[in-house]
Formats: sequence, structure tokens, C-alpha cells
Amino acid sequence: MTDKFQDECGVFGIFGHPEAANLTYLGLYAMQHRGQESCGIVSSDGQSLNCYKKMGLVADVFKSPNVFKRLPGKSAIGHVRYSTAGGNDPKNIQPIMVDYHRGSIAVAHNGNLVNAQEVRNRLELEGSIFSTIADTEVIIHLLAKAEAESLADRVVEALQQIKGAYSLAFLTETRMVAVRDPNGFRPLALGKLDGAYVVASETCAFDLIEAEFIREVEPGELIVVDKNGLKSFKPFEPRKPSPCIFEFIYFARPDSTIFGKEVYEVRTEFGRVLAREYPVEADLVIPIPDSGVPAAIGYAEESGIPFQLGLIRNHYVGRTFIEPAQSIRHFGVKLKLNPVRNLIEGKRVVVVDDSIVRGTTARKIIKMIRNAGAKEVHVRISSPPTSFPCYYGIDTPTRKELISSSHSVEEINRYITADSLGYLSRKGLLEAVGAGEGEGGHFCDACFSGQYPVKFPRLKADSQLGLF
Amino acid sequence: MTDKFQDECGVFGIFGHPEAANLTYLGLYAMQHRGQESCGIVSSDGQSLNCYKKMGLVADVFKSPNVFKRLPGKSAIGHVRYSTAGGNDPKNIQPIMVDYHRGSIAVAHNGNLVNAQEVRNRLELEGSIFSTIADTEVIIHLLAKAEAESLADRVVEALQQIKGAYSLAFLTETRMVAVRDPNGFRPLALGKLDGAYVVASETCAFDLIEAEFIREVEPGELIVVDKNGLKSFKPFEPRKPSPCIFEFIYFARPDSTIFGKEVYEVRTEFGRVLAREYPVEADLVIPIPDSGVPAAIGYAEESGIPFQLGLIRNHYVGRTFIEPAQSIRHFGVKLKLNPVRNLIEGKRVVVVDDSIVRGTTARKIIKMIRNAGAKEVHVRISSPPTSFPCYYGIDTPTRKELISSSHSVEEINRYITADSLGYLSRKGLLEAVGAGEGEGGHFCDACFSGQYPVKFPRLKADSQLGLF
Amino acid sequence: MTDKFQDECGVFGIFGHPEAANLTYLGLYAMQHRGQESCGIVSSDGQSLNCYKKMGLVADVFKSPNVFKRLPGKSAIGHVRYSTAGGNDPKNIQPIMVDYHRGSIAVAHNGNLVNAQEVRNRLELEGSIFSTIADTEVIIHLLAKAEAESLADRVVEALQQIKGAYSLAFLTETRMVAVRDPNGFRPLALGKLDGAYVVASETCAFDLIEAEFIREVEPGELIVVDKNGLKSFKPFEPRKPSPCIFEFIYFARPDSTIFGKEVYEVRTEFGRVLAREYPVEADLVIPIPDSGVPAAIGYAEESGIPFQLGLIRNHYVGRTFIEPAQSIRHFGVKLKLNPVRNLIEGKRVVVVDDSIVRGTTARKIIKMIRNAGAKEVHVRISSPPTSFPCYYGIDTPTRKELISSSHSVEEINRYITADSLGYLSRKGLLEAVGAGEGEGGHFCDACFSGQYPVKFPRLKADSQLGLF
Amino acid sequence: MTDKFQDECGVFGIFGHPEAANLTYLGLYAMQHRGQESCGIVSSDGQSLNCYKKMGLVADVFKSPNVFKRLPGKSAIGHVRYSTAGGNDPKNIQPIMVDYHRGSIAVAHNGNLVNAQEVRNRLELEGSIFSTIADTEVIIHLLAKAEAESLADRVVEALQQIKGAYSLAFLTETRMVAVRDPNGFRPLALGKLDGAYVVASETCAFDLIEAEFIREVEPGELIVVDKNGLKSFKPFEPRKPSPCIFEFIYFARPDSTIFGKEVYEVRTEFGRVLAREYPVEADLVIPIPDSGVPAAIGYAEESGIPFQLGLIRNHYVGRTFIEPAQSIRHFGVKLKLNPVRNLIEGKRVVVVDDSIVRGTTARKIIKMIRNAGAKEVHVRISSPPTSFPCYYGIDTPTRKELISSSHSVEEINRYITADSLGYLSRKGLLEAVGAGEGEGGHFCDACFSGQYPVKFPRLKADSQLGLF
Repeated sequence: MTDKFQDECGVFGIFGHPEAANLTYLGLYAMQHRGQESCGIVSSDGQSLNCYKKMGLVADVFKSPNVFKRLPGKSAIGHVRYSTAGGNDPKNIQPIMVDYHRGSIAVAHNGNLVNAQEVRNRLELEGSIFSTIADTEVIIHLLAKAEAESLADRVVEALQQIKGAYSLAFLTETRMVAVRDPNGFRPLALGKLDGAYVVASETCAFDLIEAEFIREVEPGELIVVDKNGLKSFKPFEPRKPSPCIFEFIYFARPDSTIFGKEVYEVRTEFGRVLAREYPVEADLVIPIPDSGVPAAIGYAEESGIPFQLGLIRNHYVGRTFIEPAQSIRHFGVKLKLNPVRNLIEGKRVVVVDDSIVRGTTARKIIKMIRNAGAKEVHVRISSPPTSFPCYYGIDTPTRKELISSSHSVEEINRYITADSLGYLSRKGLLEAVGAGEGEGGHFCDACFSGQYPVKFPRLKADSQLGLF
Repeated sequence: MTDKFQDECGVFGIFGHPEAANLTYLGLYAMQHRGQESCGIVSSDGQSLNCYKKMGLVADVFKSPNVFKRLPGKSAIGHVRYSTAGGNDPKNIQPIMVDYHRGSIAVAHNGNLVNAQEVRNRLELEGSIFSTIADTEVIIHLLAKAEAESLADRVVEALQQIKGAYSLAFLTETRMVAVRDPNGFRPLALGKLDGAYVVASETCAFDLIEAEFIREVEPGELIVVDKNGLKSFKPFEPRKPSPCIFEFIYFARPDSTIFGKEVYEVRTEFGRVLAREYPVEADLVIPIPDSGVPAAIGYAEESGIPFQLGLIRNHYVGRTFIEPAQSIRHFGVKLKLNPVRNLIEGKRVVVVDDSIVRGTTARKIIKMIRNAGAKEVHVRISSPPTSFPCYYGIDTPTRKELISSSHSVEEINRYITADSLGYLSRKGLLEAVGAGEGEGGHFCDACFSGQYPVKFPRLKADSQLGLF
Repeated sequence: MTDKFQDECGVFGIFGHPEAANLTYLGLYAMQHRGQESCGIVSSDGQSLNCYKKMGLVADVFKSPNVFKRLPGKSAIGHVRYSTAGGNDPKNIQPIMVDYHRGSIAVAHNGNLVNAQEVRNRLELEGSIFSTIADTEVIIHLLAKAEAESLADRVVEALQQIKGAYSLAFLTETRMVAVRDPNGFRPLALGKLDGAYVVASETCAFDLIEAEFIREVEPGELIVVDKNGLKSFKPFEPRKPSPCIFEFIYFARPDSTIFGKEVYEVRTEFGRVLAREYPVEADLVIPIPDSGVPAAIGYAEESGIPFQLGLIRNHYVGRTFIEPAQSIRHFGVKLKLNPVRNLIEGKRVVVVDDSIVRGTTARKIIKMIRNAGAKEVHVRISSPPTSFPCYYGIDTPTRKELISSSHSVEEINRYITADSLGYLSRKGLLEAVGAGEGEGGHFCDACFSGQYPVKFPRLKADSQLGLF
Repeated sequence: MTDKFQDECGVFGIFGHPEAANLTYLGLYAMQHRGQESCGIVSSDGQSLNCYKKMGLVADVFKSPNVFKRLPGKSAIGHVRYSTAGGNDPKNIQPIMVDYHRGSIAVAHNGNLVNAQEVRNRLELEGSIFSTIADTEVIIHLLAKAEAESLADRVVEALQQIKGAYSLAFLTETRMVAVRDPNGFRPLALGKLDGAYVVASETCAFDLIEAEFIREVEPGELIVVDKNGLKSFKPFEPRKPSPCIFEFIYFARPDSTIFGKEVYEVRTEFGRVLAREYPVEADLVIPIPDSGVPAAIGYAEESGIPFQLGLIRNHYVGRTFIEPAQSIRHFGVKLKLNPVRNLIEGKRVVVVDDSIVRGTTARKIIKMIRNAGAKEVHVRISSPPTSFPCYYGIDTPTRKELISSSHSVEEINRYITADSLGYLSRKGLLEAVGAGEGEGGHFCDACFSGQYPVKFPRLKADSQLGLF
């Protein structure tokens, strides 16, 4: 496809608070689910920028209090990031910070550009050098070459040359800029804390630092914050907004409010609609913890079937687990989940989760539930089958990995050995988020529909999705 | 009190399996909740014992595959441990392994002896030296001095000199021994895997390794496993069993079966009884995740009030979080939990948890829920107020820390600022576990009742609980 | 001064050897003394470049064999680096590797440019962004903008815009380029191993990998190595060479050959000349280990006074030593050195070292030697007093630190409490290296003479050395 | 042989100094060469003992200042240790600290007992358990069982049951005891610092902490230090002293004074005698750094042949070096040493070292020197061929590894490809240390002579040295 890899990210920014770096740290900590591979903070003390960034979780990277001494000043932006294979080189960690003829500038980016390679080729021909494979470096180059007088105008001059999904936070010595692309693919919220303006990908970051959530940065809006306060611009040609519906299904934290709705609420509604679309006679509704919990609660509520936590999660599961090399067994999902036997024995069980990727895990879980004595196992998925890749900043599994891209629901059901399988319909999905229909309502649901709101230059040449 | 510190522990043992050390590792991993401070494995290859033990979580201590090369053989025992202040010296890590005149022996111990100090004093006067402050070393010394011919008889000879709570796994070059004290304070389950006998504190360890759960080791039972198979002995004078009721309330994993009951089932029943004992008009039942979930489900079921996951847990909370030193704020429970605003706004909420310790966390959570817009907050606790220390192997908070030891329910309610507060009654507790009443039914509930099934020698001299 | 900080570095390159990355690792290991702060390797497999670089010693950074799997290919360049305060940011680690319109290129640089800031300012005005504060990034930008057809010509086009000291190794997918500036400030040697060409800052790197030392890359020479072999160019206007005399005094390894001479030989000759310039009646010549050993041997040889290892070095001294915080004592040099008492007792001792910086260490050593019973202590230094900073790639101490910049030899002698003090004269120094005199012979001795062979643009404005 | 493994160790003790643990740390740091595998400190605050010990170098184990907070009090003992295969289990780290009926006691041991296994067997039959395989645990058991009234008498009662080499430091809550076995195999020095008594294996430990060296603890002497001062006892039957001559050859630091002589002095004398015993026409004497330096200086002095540092050591060689797995080369000694070419070219060179083990390293070095152009290479070794194992605390290579145990000097010479090879004679060795002859003078030289001053019980049964 147009880009070599995909990032999933969270961004944060704060301007004019004596604890800028600390609060950025906490904001990133609250958004750790948006990227667990690397993280970084750039702060400004009014004279110069300082940066600290590293591979690792927020709580590990910023473990030492000394780190914060290296991040002085009243303004800061931060970033958490996960990238697909090829992008996990330390040099790609954000924020990216550079010097140029107007001073220093740093940027944190959530999203994915669709014409990054084209612009990059052009810039290289003009003599530019690139240190990373991140889209974001393209933005910085364009910004350094922009000729407009004000920072806001230069940012606009740069962004008018790019297409795709971007929620961005910039920091200079004296200003913070926040922008959301005209489609508004990725969320970006605006808040206030002790008089300082704050931006964050998700409102859960505001909750932790006790900032007040004011409103979302609007699609196509550019905000500049400096010592004189906040100014809002709408410099781009308006487009029909298409925020990412997948944020509701899987990516955002359930306690965040995005695109005007509370995520938890939407997820339980997915469950309610699912119960109407795929009812079943059963004794028990159990979620796959923790991803399936809200939808399972909604399903139970609507169907009247009792909700139970029939699968218990091992609290100590983490990335450090090494399966013994010599073992003749494969422990897989058992390390993470264990059924509550008596609860399940002899029962007809509805199992709810938010998605099925390869189907192998679902197959194992169903086997596990049957071994615990379930009479019937009905699987309900609170999203439609994912059949198309995302080019706007979600690392959706590739088509090869995705069972639903090559198999019918009936085939999937046979593979995972459920008694029945129901996916939330696209219609039900849009209904649950309260969107009109046609073209994904006001949402991007390209991963389900294949209808991409922003075209990508070389798609034809690449013979559709063959390269993905 | 009689002992300097308290251990919480889990033990595991397997005899006659080619992957003994690996399976012990997995068994310990499944029981990590019983002790997160240190862990260890001793294996036998038929000729000699090998030991690897260290401070740290199971997945960290046994991270390197090379470790398993140092643990050859077909039999192994393992241990996870948490200890109160004073006991966290590396030398106290279990299993303890020593050489004596019959060869080598290792032991893993869950529980707490009440006459350890007395016996130790006697042994020291006879010229014994002690390297640890663990009760367990006393057992090993008694065993080395025992004169009986068979290993089983020597173990009995040793254990007849001690009193208190013990579930033990011993390993020699050629035998595994498992014992549960006559009161059966701590659980110990017997299973089978590929023809090999397995013992574990909780059945969740069997589930992970796919061992079959046969039965519990009975109170006062001693089991010897060698190449000829398993032999069971009942060498002790029978006592009325008094298994620890606190395992059901808090300590055991919800997917384990202990003392003949499934823990999850018992916990939801706590919720149901609680709903009958302390009903309230409300719109929502929400648990404190994850401890309050089963009881909240039971409470919702019985009361008909909808269950919702109104508090979202941050998945990345771990011990590594360092609150920024310079911060003017205290983030406390906010780092761990965040309310789902729309869900709670304008609602009367029942909040369910398994216990209240100091009350400070409950107070903060209630404030958080009120800030999210709750109209009323009713707190329901699925256990009676804990007022007495445990001397049998649970690290109950000391009286000083425990708000219920010095305050009435009404006072606690006022402190945590709830609209109402209800604790499960002792009667309701026993009813829920299906026990007869009087003397704790067939359970030890000394932490609630102060009725201790095994007396401790110096209690009078210490003027009751003053030293605790 | 013109630059914000100074690097000390070593570079290595190899083209066309199946073990390119491994051999680069070993070459860097042999040149660890040239930079202990960070190191890195870039390899080429003919199609693309791969990079691994990190803070730390060579043996630590490349500890894991897996690292080498990430560095495939038959060509590689490497770099070790030490930088003064301000430069020790991970992003400044070399080699620097970037993408530009002709593909990828990496560069490793030893030296220091005097017009880097000027060129950088100009490039920024043209829209370039800078990620590091290294001079080297300037070179890369110039190279990317160069318009000549061949790589060699583009390198020349870039280098013609810069002034100062540089020994450089470039690597592209298919070529290696090595250059030494027209003054030849820093060494760069050319060798051959199994038919592959090798370059290294010092010949000790060749010795370790058993490469044959062919000759030095000449001042102003540019060498291109590709599949067709090696081509040499002399594209710059010839200048009088001025290799750095300080490499002989202190920086290079004694077993290296640089600038046509063996370092050890030159250092013993320093001692011999010193003995002629500052003879003294004494019983013993002892070196400060290990820096003073060759000169002490030369001094002993010339003077006929016996050489003894009167100060013993602790082999385990490393950077990890933490002096106990609570200690009332200051252990300082005692941790590193200890006198051999009987040897020294009652003797007249000549102590030889290569330089004196602050004088505090010398003062302590002399006290230590007197405490061991020496009757007289005569100090001999195998270089002239260092009074001027280096702008060409040696981190000479700043004037403030340097006792000789503000004190006469007599005053220094009084401070260090020696019975006599003799510094090698500039004349003796040049004689020992076999140079003609006037203008430093064919050497740069600016740190002693203040005569800088390459002027720096803003020196006047900075009122001489005031900013240093 | 009688024991499973051999320890090399250093011990330190201090009584009555406010910085006891810190000074012990420094003392161990100075004696790091006596044991690099593990180290530990036990301190006493007058009421109880505290211990911190770990695998690793002193500077690493005691890196954190917090460690010293865990070692309060005015008295402390410490230990550094290296052990042969089998003994490197963390539980064997010293000091060993236990509780017994009189309180707590810790011990640090340098040496090796010859009847440890016998005594251990007896103790096990009496019901004792053993946690380590260290001889030292036997001593502690005997001490705990001793019935005498005073600590000194109990120590004597214990030590009268053991045979072999021991320099010991004991610490109780209120006393420090230091003992040297009647043969005085291992060194032990007594010093004073700010009124506090100090003991250490080597005087270099005193030099670092600036303690005054008073005298050696004498063979068979037992010293008790408490608040009333120091008392000396001579409780053992006198034996002819036999201090270990190998301490002079290799083990002790050159700046220490042991057995009444300065080590450096003795080593240069070895070189002088060697020059008389094996003179040769040559141009240069060069040492293998650093082990051969003093003897080379002595050889040069006596022979009149100039001394040069013809082999340069890489300062960064450490244990962390990993030779690249894929490498087709073996780098071996080249990583550590490199010849100075011009110095050696065309010369007749005498190479001096303290010993030859397998001969493989010597062979490589000689090849390296010849490749550097040497015309002749004459090897001189400053000790006799080592042919017998040590049972008293030095980890001499086993007979299998030792080239001199199975080959004549002539054969060795042929293998290492020298032009001539000369070993210091036993006569010359004893002459150099100023000993009378017959029976090793007043030294144990069993490793050269096979004459063991203390017999070991099972030697005959083991058919001489076959099992070693």
C-alpha cells in the first residue's frame, strides 16, 4: 500500500502549566492503551525545547524522577506509539523534534497520511534528507520550508500538501498548535486545567489529571495557544466528517468520550442491538474479559439472560511470559483465561466479544468452555466482520491474518466450532452509534465497507490490496 | 504475637513427569496471586535435588530458558510467597532445601505455625543453627532429627511437635510428600496429569496444566508418592476441620474450587445474601473491579437492579508506577479507576466490594462517583467487618490499619461519606458457604469472630493482641 | 567558540567481507579508547543499509549475538564516540544514516568542523531541518543537495563547503568512501583483509582483526571502494599537512602506528628527551600507570636511573565505583593507585606522567609517595604545558580547569608540592617526533602554541577564547 | 579429593568504627583480586546482625547507597569469593550468618579444610542439616554445639575438630574474632584505624582505608576484639608454620605486605634470580602485562637487558566481551594484548610471565611476537612448574589442564615454540623469598614439591590424585 507501516498512537499537549511534563506523563499513562511500544515528551521552557523518548511503557520510560528535571518548562507535548513491523526502530519514536531556521519545533502525530511517500519523493529530489520512516517527518520538512509569516499559516501551508488522517500537537519555544484533519478521522479533545489549555486524544487523560473537558477539536480546526490565549482557525476546505467508528468498537478506552459519545455507552448499545439481531435461547451471557464486557452487559440486559463472569482472567499475564521452550504443550489462551466450571456446567452459554481476528483464539476458548461442561456455546461479536485494511491509523490485521476476509460467517462458525455465530450488522453498528446510513453515516467504516473517504494515490497501480 | 511475621503462599508439587520443572513453573504462574514477592522450584532427577529461587514474579524469575536446564528431573515442588515486613530477606525464599544424614530434602510451606518460636528455642539449646526466620526451617530441623525408619514416619514424628496451619509439599531424591494440618486451615488439592500425581494450593493450577482434579488432600492427611504410586496416611489425632473462610472472600482465585466449593459461586452468593440483608432502592449496581465483580453480579441478580461496569480499571497499573515527585497533586486511586460518567450521572448507585481496610480508598472512590454525578451512593461489602488478626497464614491488616477494629459501621459510613453502608453479616457469610453456625460452622472465621481454633502458647503473656 | 561541543571519536569501515559487521565490532572494540560514550555500526547488504547504535561501551552495546543478525551484508562502517556536555544525547550517536533522493547513506566522522554553524545557518534558511547538534549532520545535508553525478564528486562538492578536521567513512548500498581533510588533522589508516579494504582511525584495529596495514589515507585524499576495487582521488587544493601532535602524547593507543610513526616509540623518545632537558639525581623512576609508562621507560633508559612500577593500579577500577555517600573520607586517587612502600622508602623518586590537568591528582599522588617514605619527589611531564583549546577534535580541558593556563611551572610545582617539576619543551616535543620546527613542524601543536592551522570564522567576535 | 571444590577468598573485619560497613566495602574493593564471583558484608549494631551479600563484583553489589542503610552499626566483617565449578550457588556466598542459642554469629573464611567432609558426616548423623556445600558451615555447626562458656573458648573448641587452612573473621552482636590456622597457610593482617581494630587478608586493604598496619595475625593465633579492647590467645598446639608461597607468585596484590615481605619486592627478586639461573643474550626484556611486570623488571635489572612494554594491554577487556558467534576466527589473546611492532622487529626478545598453565596462551603470544618481527623469543617463568594441586585454598588448575604436570620443560618449550624456556627453580624460589630449604623452608610449596604440610584423610583411598 501507500505506506510501509501503520502507527497506532495517542497524543497529548499542555500549555502554560508549571507541571507541564508531569501532567503530560500522566496523560500518556492514561492513554497507554493507544500505544505500548514507545513514548516521549518534549517540553518548552520558553527558550528552548527538551526531549526525552524511549522504547517502553510510559511508567517504565519515565520511572526515574531525574527524567523530569531534563524536561523543564510550562509547556509540553507527548506521544505514545505502537507500530507494525518495520517501524519499531528507536529513531521513529515521537515526538519528533528538530531545529530549523525559525528555531526548534516538535510534533506528535496520531493518524496516517496517504500521500506521504509522494511528498517525500518530491522533497528528496529537492535535497531533503530523511532520518525516519514516519509520515510525521514529511510534515516537519514541509513546515520548515513553508514561507508564511505566522506559525499558524506555516502549519496550514504544510498541511495543505498532505492528505489522510492526522490529529497533531506541535510545540515551539512559545506556542502550542493542535490540528485535526478535515475528515476528523482521529479524536482530539480540548480541555482546561488551572487556566492552562490541554489537548489529548482521549478524555480519559483529562479525567486522570482532573482537567475539565471543554469540547472536541473539530474536524479541520487548527488551534494555536500562546501567552495571549487560544485562537481557533478553520483554514481547510470543509469536508464531510468521517471519524473512525473502530475507536468505538475496540480502540478507545470505555471511560472516554469521543466524537460526542461515551464509549462504554456505545459498546453496551452494540450489545443491545446484537441481542435484537441475533437472539438465542440461553442460560448465561459471558464476556471475553475485558474486551467483551460492555457488549455482554448490553446483550444480557436486552435479552434478559443473566450476565456472569464465566471466564476469569489471570491478572499477572504480561508480555514477559516465556512459554518453556522444551514444553510439549501449547498453553496459549489458557495462560490468560480460565472458565468457572460449576457456572458453565450443563448451561447454554452466549459468549460475547468485540471482534474475531484469526479465529484460533475463539476456537480455543469455545473448546475450553465446552470442556467446562457447556451444553451449547453461542458466539456474538459486537462488530461486523472486518474485511478491509485501515489506511488512517489503526493497525487492522492484514487480510491474510483476517479470517473474515476470506471466509463466510458460516465457515467461521464451523471453524470456531460454535453452535451459532452472530456478527453485529453494519446497519446495527451505525444505528447504535446514532449515525445516518449511506457512506457510513458520518463515520468512516471503511474497514467493514471498503468505502474509503480519502483516496490514496497509488492504489490502482498496486492492484488494489495485493501489496497489503 | 507468637510469630514475627506472616507469610502468604502457594505450593505446588508433581512427581513422575518428564516436564516436572516446567509444569511447576506454570502451576506457580497460575497461583501468582497467592504470593508475588518471591518464588522457587526444587527438582529431583532421582539422584540429587536442584534449586532455583529468587525475589520476583514467577514470569520474571523463570524468564530464561536456561533456568530450566538447571532443574532437571521428573519431580519438582515449587512455592510462591509474600511476606510482611521483616520476612522479605532472600534467604527466606522457599522451597528450603538442605542436606542431612539421609540425603537431601526440600520443603514448600503454606500456613503459619503457632509454636514455631518455642520449638526453635528448644532446638537452638540442643545446638541447632538457624539460617532463616521462617517457621519452615523448624520443620526441617525436626525432620532431620527424627529417628523413625520411613520418610513418612519421620515427617509425622516432626509434625507431631508443631501446631498451627500447614499445607506442605516435601521432595526428596525419590519421593514427594504432601500434608495438610489436622484443622485443614489452608487448601491443598490432589490431581493427576499423564499418570503423574500433582498437588497444588488451588485447582486453577491444575486447569492451566490440564491436570485432572481428583480430590482435596484431607485435613490431617499425609500422602507419599514414589515410584510405586501414592499412599495415604491419617497419622494425626482427628480434629474438627476449620478451613479458612477468608480464602473464599478474598484470597483464592475465583475460578478455583476449594473446600468443596467453587469460589466464584460462593462470591456471587455473598452478593445475593447481601442484597437480602441490605436491600436499597437504586438504579445501578457497580463493582469495584476486579475484587467486587462476582458479589456485585449476585447483588444485581437478587435485587433486580441492573449491573454495570461503572468504574473502568487502567490495564497498565502495576507496581512500577512512580508518582512524579514534584507533583502538587495526589493521584491515588485515579491512576487505577475512572468512572463512566454518563452511566452514573443522576443515578442512585450501589457500589460493591469484598472488604474495606483503612476506608481511605473507599472514601476517594465515593467522591469520584459523586463527582461523576451520582445522586446517591450505597456501599455494600461482601464480608463482615474484619476485627481480629489471622495467625494461620493470611496477612490480615493490623488492628491499627483496620478501620473496622476501632469504628462502628455507622462511623465508617460517615467517614467514607456513603449514603448507606452494609456489611455481610457473619450469619449471612456462613449461610452463603453452606456452613452450620456455632464455632464458625466447619470454618475458621477467627478474623471476624475472634474464635481461634488452635491456641497459641504465649497469647496470655502478650496481653491479648497488644503486640500485634 | 564556533562549536557547542567537542567530540572525540574513532571510525572504522570495511567493504566486501562476509563478516563485515563482526569485524567492524572488533575494530571498534580495539579503538574503544577513542570514545567510550556511545557506538554504532551501519551495514549494507547491497540493497539497503541497517543501523544499530546505542549509548555504552562496544562490548555492552553489541553484547547480544542477535544484534548482528540485524546487521547483514558485506560492508559496514562503525563509530565510537565521546562528547563533552551537551552532546551526549542519544540522537547524536554515530554513524548517522539517512535517506535521500539517491537512496540511503551513512557517515562516521572523527574531527571537528570550524564553520559548521555558518553552514548550518545557511542550510536552515534554505528550509533544512536538523535533528542533531553534530557537525556531521551538516555534511550529510550538503551531500544530499550536491548535484554532481558520481558519489565521489558529490562528496567533494559537499566537503568543499566545510573547513576543519575530518576523517570520514561513508557507506551507501554499494560503495564505501573514506576521506581525510587536507590538513590531515586526524589519523586514518588503510588496510586489507582477505581481499576486502578496511579503514580505521588507528592501526591497532587492524592488528586485532589481522588485517594488513597498507598505508595511511593521505591528507586531502578521497578513496572510493566498490565492487570494482579502490580508487583514490586528490580533489582538494593541497595544504601543508598538520596532523595532531596530541595523538602521540595521549590519545592514540601505544601499539598503533599513526602519521608514519609508532606511538610507543615516540612516547619513550619523549621520556629520553625529557631526561636530557630535566635531569635529576635520583634512585628510582616510576610512572603513573598506565599513561606514564613509556615515557618513564625512556627517562630511565636515558638517565640510567632504575625503572620500577612503584605505583600499583587496582585492576577493578571502573566507572561503576560509587564512593559511599556517608563517608567522611575522600578516597580519590587511592582507589586507583597504591604505592609499593619498601621500594620507595628513603628513595629519591622521579615520577613521570604524560600531562597535568588540574594538578589536584598530581598533588595527591605526590603526598601518597611521600607518605610511603620517599625522600624526594621529582615530577617529569612528557608534554609541554597545555594552554590553548583544541578546535579540531580533541576534548582538551577548558582553560578554567587547566592549571597551566593560569599558573607558571614554578607555581604549579609549589601547588603539587614536588621537589622539582619539568615539562617537556615544545622544542623537545617536536624533536622527539622528528618534525622540523617553525609552525609546528608538520604537526598541529596549537594546544601548546596557540598557532591554529585552520582559522575559525567567529574567533575575533568571540574575543579570543572568552567563550570557551 | 577430599573436597568437592576450592574457594579463593579474601576476608575483612573491623570493630568499633562508626563507618564499619563502608570501610568493609572499601577493604573488599581493594581485595577484589582475591575473589570476583560474589561478596558480602555482615554488620553489627550491638543488638543484632545484618547481612547483604550477592553474586557480583564489590562495586556492583554495593552500588546503591541504600544498601549501607541496611548495614548499620560499628562493626562488620566482609568476604570476597571465587569458587570452582559446583560452588557458585548463591547460597554459598559468605559471610555465613546464623542464629543459635547464644544469639547470632557470622563468619568469613579464607582457606580450605581437609577434614570437612568427615566432620560433616558426623554432624549429619547427629541430626544437623546443611544448607551449603561450604566448609565454613561445618565450623558454624561445631561452634553452635560447643559447650565452653566464653566465645573464645567455643571457637577454640570448634576449631580443634578441624584441620587445614583457615584465616577466619567471626562477628557476633558484641565481638569480633580473628583466627589463623596453626600452619598459617593464608595471610591475615591486623591494623588500626581511628582506634578501631581491623583485620584483612592483605595490607592493600589497609592502605586504601588509611589504616595503620600493626602486624600479622600469627599462625595459630586467635584474637578477640570487644568493647574492652583486643585480647590475643595461642590455644593450639604449635606447628611449623607453612605460609603459602603461591601468594607471592601470583595471588596477592604486588603492593601488599604478606608473611613479612613486600610482594612486589619478592617478585622482582624472582626475576633477578631467574636472570642468574637462565641468562640469555637478548636485546629486550618484555613482560606479559600485568602479571609478568615485576619479574621482568628484576630480570632486566640483573641481566642489563633493556626493559620495554612490548605488549600493550587493551584497557577495556572485561568479562562482558562476547566473541561474535558467527565468526570464523578465534581472537583469543589478541583481544587482550597487542605487540608494539617497531620495538620488537629484528630483536631478540625475553618474555617474562609468572606461570604457564595450558601453554596455549603462551604459544599464541609467542606467535604474535614472532609475527611482529622478533628474531628470537626466549620465555622466562618466575616460578617452578606447577605439578601438584593445592588443598589449602588456591584454585590451582587441575592436573589435566596443567601442561607441566604431564610434559617436560623441553616438551613445553617445543609446544609453545620458544627459542628457549626457563622456569625459576624451586631452590631459586626459596632463595628469593629468603627461606631456608628442606621441606619448603618455612613455606608451603606443595604445588611444586608435592610435600603437603597437613595430611588429608582419604588421600590414599583416592589413589593419590586420580580423582582431582
